[in-house]
Amino acid sequence: MPSETVELRGHIIDSLTLPKVLDEVMNYGGTFEIIDVTIGHRREDPSHARIRVSAPAQEILDTILGRIRQLGAAPVLEEDAVLVPADKDGAFPENFYCTTNLQTFVRCRGQWLEAERPEMDCGIVVDPDRKRAATIPIHRVKKGDRIVVGHPGVRVTPLERSSERNVFEFMASSVSSEKPKGIVIKEVSAQIRAAKKAGSKVMVVAGPAVVHTGAGTHLERLIEAGWVDVLFAGNALAVHDIEQALYGTSLGVYLEKGIPAKEGHEHHMRAINTIRRAGGIRNAVDQGILRSGIMAACVRKGIEFVLAGSIRDDGPLPEVMTDMVSAQDALRSVLPGVSVCVMIATMLHSIAAGNLLPAAVKLVCVDINPAVVTKLTDRGSFQAVGLVTDVEPFLRELWTNLSG
Amino acid sequence: MPSETVELRGHIIDSLTLPKVLDEVMNYGGTFEIIDVTIGHRREDPSHARIRVSAPAQEILDTILGRIRQLGAAPVLEEDAVLVPADKDGAFPENFYCTTNLQTFVRCRGQWLEAERPEMDCGIVVDPDRKRAATIPIHRVKKGDRIVVGHPGVRVTPLERSSERNVFEFMASSVSSEKPKGIVIKEVSAQIRAAKKAGSKVMVVAGPAVVHTGAGTHLERLIEAGWVDVLFAGNALAVHDIEQALYGTSLGVYLEKGIPAKEGHEHHMRAINTIRRAGGIRNAVDQGILRSGIMAACVRKGIEFVLAGSIRDDGPLPEVMTDMVSAQDALRSVLPGVSVCVMIATMLHSIAAGNLLPAAVKLVCVDINPAVVTKLTDRGSFQAVGLVTDVEPFLRELWTNLSG
Amino acid sequence: MPSETVELRGHIIDSLTLPKVLDEVMNYGGTFEIIDVTIGHRREDPSHARIRVSAPAQEILDTILGRIRQLGAAPVLEEDAVLVPADKDGAFPENFYCTTNLQTFVRCRGQWLEAERPEMDCGIVVDPDRKRAATIPIHRVKKGDRIVVGHPGVRVTPLERSSERNVFEFMASSVSSEKPKGIVIKEVSAQIRAAKKAGSKVMVVAGPAVVHTGAGTHLERLIEAGWVDVLFAGNALAVHDIEQALYGTSLGVYLEKGIPAKEGHEHHMRAINTIRRAGGIRNAVDQGILRSGIMAACVRKGIEFVLAGSIRDDGPLPEVMTDMVSAQDALRSVLPGVSVCVMIATMLHSIAAGNLLPAAVKLVCVDINPAVVTKLTDRGSFQAVGLVTDVEPFLRELWTNLSG
Amino acid sequence: MPSETVELRGHIIDSLTLPKVLDEVMNYGGTFEIIDVTIGHRREDPSHARIRVSAPAQEILDTILGRIRQLGAAPVLEEDAVLVPADKDGAFPENFYCTTNLQTFVRCRGQWLEAERPEMDCGIVVDPDRKRAATIPIHRVKKGDRIVVGHPGVRVTPLERSSERNVFEFMASSVSSEKPKGIVIKEVSAQIRAAKKAGSKVMVVAGPAVVHTGAGTHLERLIEAGWVDVLFAGNALAVHDIEQALYGTSLGVYLEKGIPAKEGHEHHMRAINTIRRAGGIRNAVDQGILRSGIMAACVRKGIEFVLAGSIRDDGPLPEVMTDMVSAQDALRSVLPGVSVCVMIATMLHSIAAGNLLPAAVKLVCVDINPAVVTKLTDRGSFQAVGLVTDVEPFLRELWTNLSG
Repeated sequence: MPSETVELRGHIIDSLTLPKVLDEVMNYGGTFEIIDVTIGHRREDPSHARIRVSAPAQEILDTILGRIRQLGAAPVLEEDAVLVPADKDGAFPENFYCTTNLQTFVRCRGQWLEAERPEMDCGIVVDPDRKRAATIPIHRVKKGDRIVVGHPGVRVTPLERSSERNVFEFMASSVSSEKPKGIVIKEVSAQIRAAKKAGSKVMVVAGPAVVHTGAGTHLERLIEAGWVDVLFAGNALAVHDIEQALYGTSLGVYLEKGIPAKEGHEHHMRAINTIRRAGGIRNAVDQGILRSGIMAACVRKGIEFVLAGSIRDDGPLPEVMTDMVSAQDALRSVLPGVSVCVMIATMLHSIAAGNLLPAAVKLVCVDINPAVVTKLTDRGSFQAVGLVTDVEPFLRELWTNLSG
Repeated sequence: MPSETVELRGHIIDSLTLPKVLDEVMNYGGTFEIIDVTIGHRREDPSHARIRVSAPAQEILDTILGRIRQLGAAPVLEEDAVLVPADKDGAFPENFYCTTNLQTFVRCRGQWLEAERPEMDCGIVVDPDRKRAATIPIHRVKKGDRIVVGHPGVRVTPLERSSERNVFEFMASSVSSEKPKGIVIKEVSAQIRAAKKAGSKVMVVAGPAVVHTGAGTHLERLIEAGWVDVLFAGNALAVHDIEQALYGTSLGVYLEKGIPAKEGHEHHMRAINTIRRAGGIRNAVDQGILRSGIMAACVRKGIEFVLAGSIRDDGPLPEVMTDMVSAQDALRSVLPGVSVCVMIATMLHSIAAGNLLPAAVKLVCVDINPAVVTKLTDRGSFQAVGLVTDVEPFLRELWTNLSG
Repeated sequence: MPSETVELRGHIIDSLTLPKVLDEVMNYGGTFEIIDVTIGHRREDPSHARIRVSAPAQEILDTILGRIRQLGAAPVLEEDAVLVPADKDGAFPENFYCTTNLQTFVRCRGQWLEAERPEMDCGIVVDPDRKRAATIPIHRVKKGDRIVVGHPGVRVTPLERSSERNVFEFMASSVSSEKPKGIVIKEVSAQIRAAKKAGSKVMVVAGPAVVHTGAGTHLERLIEAGWVDVLFAGNALAVHDIEQALYGTSLGVYLEKGIPAKEGHEHHMRAINTIRRAGGIRNAVDQGILRSGIMAACVRKGIEFVLAGSIRDDGPLPEVMTDMVSAQDALRSVLPGVSVCVMIATMLHSIAAGNLLPAAVKLVCVDINPAVVTKLTDRGSFQAVGLVTDVEPFLRELWTNLSG
Repeated sequence: MPSETVELRGHIIDSLTLPKVLDEVMNYGGTFEIIDVTIGHRREDPSHARIRVSAPAQEILDTILGRIRQLGAAPVLEEDAVLVPADKDGAFPENFYCTTNLQTFVRCRGQWLEAERPEMDCGIVVDPDRKRAATIPIHRVKKGDRIVVGHPGVRVTPLERSSERNVFEFMASSVSSEKPKGIVIKEVSAQIRAAKKAGSKVMVVAGPAVVHTGAGTHLERLIEAGWVDVLFAGNALAVHDIEQALYGTSLGVYLEKGIPAKEGHEHHMRAINTIRRAGGIRNAVDQGILRSGIMAACVRKGIEFVLAGSIRDDGPLPEVMTDMVSAQDALRSVLPGVSVCVMIATMLHSIAAGNLLPAAVKLVCVDINPAVVTKLTDRGSFQAVGLVTDVEPFLRELWTNLSG
């Protein structure tokens, strides 16, 4: 009966890694013998376990080893990863190793290389001579790239729960509108302050409801005050922000008065037309046409913004990227250094950002619809917190906290 | 071919009454001839129309006349209402007239009597000698009560849109979370101020999420400051309010810190036990056991509160009415004089209140779930406004507006 | 430093009991030393662990022991439970032991007594002479009853995951509408068949949407065919079922044609009136007035039904219990023997049933609203499965499966 | 006081056009005098009204005339539309006429030209010499195009309610899950049959939940049987359909068994890789790699499909259009001839299709989330019906109806 000894290290009890590993072994028809287990006496102490995994056939054993490797259980004696050159552009070789968004190492010539830019649902390309490994999205594969195939020689580091128990973590555990949210917003503010202090970047992903609900001015202030480094959004956020700046309306409704403007339903098209006539958002700011709002603040402060189009867009505005592959690549290019990402009232762009972000980035997802929050925070990590609330008071209170 | 001439008066174009009447006539297989129509030249001017309605059979004509009577179309020549004595307690005679929540008149001995206490899904009892008519719920019918049967001799006054167009009305038109809400909250504050100034009563219907989200303190202040005259709620609101006052938690979560208390899930049972041991909420306040929170404020300020139980209650608290028929009657007894009703985060008690309220009472329904708001505001009147938002910031801002 | 040795038995790794216990110890400021741990080599093998728990003060140690006792960790040397006589009717002594819905044992004169009728948020009353222990709801406490106080001498048995992994369990793990549901419905059918075969009872909790969506006929057939032993519902289900039987409409809409009936909005009031005139549902069936529908099937088949009223009811029907405390007791009286409970499209009555059911009863919760399903299935057990789907096709397919 | 006489024709009472026009006049501060009004005696008879509209200033009068023109009220004496040549590519002249999705006519040299391809939020380009007018999306504008500016000389035809009252229309009036849906599905089937009989096209817009819920096979059959002429979807629908065809899973869950596959979360990436290696979906079908599923049925039957990418896509598949402007144009090119559009479980692509479709196309929108249905059907027309239900039973029943 084929068997292999694997090793587990870290907070394997506390983070439920050990039970999960035993679970997987049994789920796939294997058996295990726990050779030794050392359990830390305090939360901070790491534990350690060695387990012999057996299975009725080599193929089953390989499946099991592949599964538990994703949980951090690596064979005690490890071999090199298998590299296969891509046989065509834009596709992986058969049986390519499919990445998670966790920190990942590849064994190459006896040495563990950390894969750069962790991102899920990619492959890993290795340059053995330069001793570099990196995740690679499928469309960037070039014929001849050396791609990791199968699970041997790959090791991931599971996320561990922080040793302090705080409100952030408690809130992360379940999604409900029936919670005191002021405390979570305080905690989010603290995380943003900590990120800025540590020199890392804060990203905001925002949907047009930010403008419709009258919260645009709060986001504008957060940008002006330097709390936002990257803005990721779609055409609609920018259009209604500009509509608001030019006409005082969002989707034709006066934000000051809450009533619809005469012919207000056309305002967003006229806003688009004005910006297209000016040659773009940046030009409109330079020419003094666009003087306030979120986008104007981004231009004035010189912060990075990526506007990714979608099939339902009107216009779109000139700065909106209409090709989705290029837009994803543009987003990838601004992600390095981001450690906190606040997603507000947009499912499409939030999922897009979530797909590309490493698991270690702290996510805060804010939406009035609990289904959206569940979908976005359900990534099996301890790093995502969901807040079911109205976006306007959320941003107002965030601004109050950060400006205080 | 049987026919009858009916008359329509009021803002019959503006309030869509005329089209609706013609619609009903045609829907049920009748035909009409418009004898004359006078349309007011300005919004304030009433219009007037006389229409001859014909149908292939008398029975169909009667059905049509019954339907359009609910829209305010009454025969030019009207007869007395038919009164039939109830043949047993707790039930109406067959074919009883089933009420709407609109102002209703009954013709008795040639005279139009206004039915007291308009309430939907009731009958109308008439005392011809004392010239009084009143709606009566089914369980209160006593053998011998003279009940209106059929439609003849009954006339209702449809609600009309106010002549001013304001944000309240615009907001009423559709339910969406993507709106600027600050303005609506201002408008709600204005309505509450106006009600108090006019000497009418303000009712609040509230669910336990008010406490869970940390908004209990705002409601407590509103009560203390005299803005609330009647509170209608269930066991859960009172239990968690008292849990909060005694332990600082709601459903076991510390509202100040946002983290769960040790054994906090038992707090609500211990709170119930404490109040039961003290002999009730009022006693607990008198004995100094209960010193803060919504219920303590109600007791101190002496405002009317009705706590109606439900099948899912723990305990319940001594003041909670456990018999539903008595609880409905208790609610009926506090309604006269209410002109504004704010419903916050409770579907069950809001529907219960909505069932009993006349159509003329202004409803404000606040919930984070759009389906709840739609259900509650969908009463075919211009008097209900729905707000899809988080209850804590809603109550905070309402308090800021009213205390400013 | 005070310490105590506790023991854990069962599937303590697989069911995550061990990590949870260690977690609690650390959360409340204690430390632990694992004296020995034996982990079963196969899923079926139980594991065993002995842990010395220490804390800086006796009070903290007691808190920790109380918490982990709920997870099944009992001191190696156990003492008797403390019994305190109730000092008044309708209230527990201070510091009463507050129950979970798990199987619970109380140590009395050196012997472990199983508490009858497990139900959460109750107390435990013990008769030491007759060697009996039972949960008791607060309103039933009589002065002099001997009530368990504090945690010592109480032991609960945590639920364990079944050793077979099936679709039921997979489905239980998350709530989403985006799943293949046919398989779950098959599994629910199998559970119902198994329950009937084992001689236990199947309970259905149903809301009026069952009738509105045209699914009443499926439920009627399930009752007729003997698949349902207990029906728990409110006034509305019965009213609209009877409306449907008498007029062919539900809330005034013809179920056969999908269009509103003339004056259909009054049908439910006329249905209530008819049944009240007949003296109740049973009488109406006996008199041949009520011939079809869910309620008629219950009467004809003689199955137990509990109709619990609510504050929003019209009427109500004579069989509807209007006192909530009596209605809960009526529900308690029909629960013994129930092993499967299917909750369909009603939050109020489902929560009420869930409050009273032991954790070992298998729950199936079906609703088109994911928030309702999440709320009902979120009981920390492996016995609740949620299905986000439309109730009409659910009941149709359930009937097809069970009648096949 | 400036004034103008306008004319209204059609079912102006029945379709609420007259009240809406009077409403707008008053809203914007104008006054009206009804010169004459002829109201049809039966539903089928058109009505006619002439109204003199006055306003305190010419500018206000123009605003009012612009507004009521959208409701079909055109000046009795009409002038030609104003045409202004575009001064640059990709932008309209200032004050361009912004289209609705209604049938629209432009007056040019005294003659009314119907604008081809009605689509909302576009401009209208006119070629006076060839007597042609057409809507034009902003990105297609070329310098020199003669674009309609302002409202004069433009006339729209409001949609009118059909004279038969059917379930379709009743259902359209409100969105609720609590309705009998079998009848609506029958009606949808009838509409599809009628469309096919009339030689017009049926379009389906579908999201990946169609596959996740196991409904892919129903859609596949509908395509095979010739009921679908155009499929509009995103990358995800095609990916999971192909995953299902290649691995039997959707998002890694076996559709036959309802349980997750080993390493199933990678299946969709392996499916994408396989199709990319084959050079696309059509090639994969030709090479025998892809043999079943929705996409294979489209290829085999040769029906038109447009796959529009989005920023959250993995891969994408080679046939997916990644440029949003091109994808919109591709969608525009397949729309002519479509008379029924069924939108299933996708908000993004449904909104995109809704933006481009003329108001006269019948929409059926099916989703389990009422908010999505409300958003999609809320287009102020009588042509959109919303169905809040589970997509699998919907498609199953649709197939049963159409194949019967």
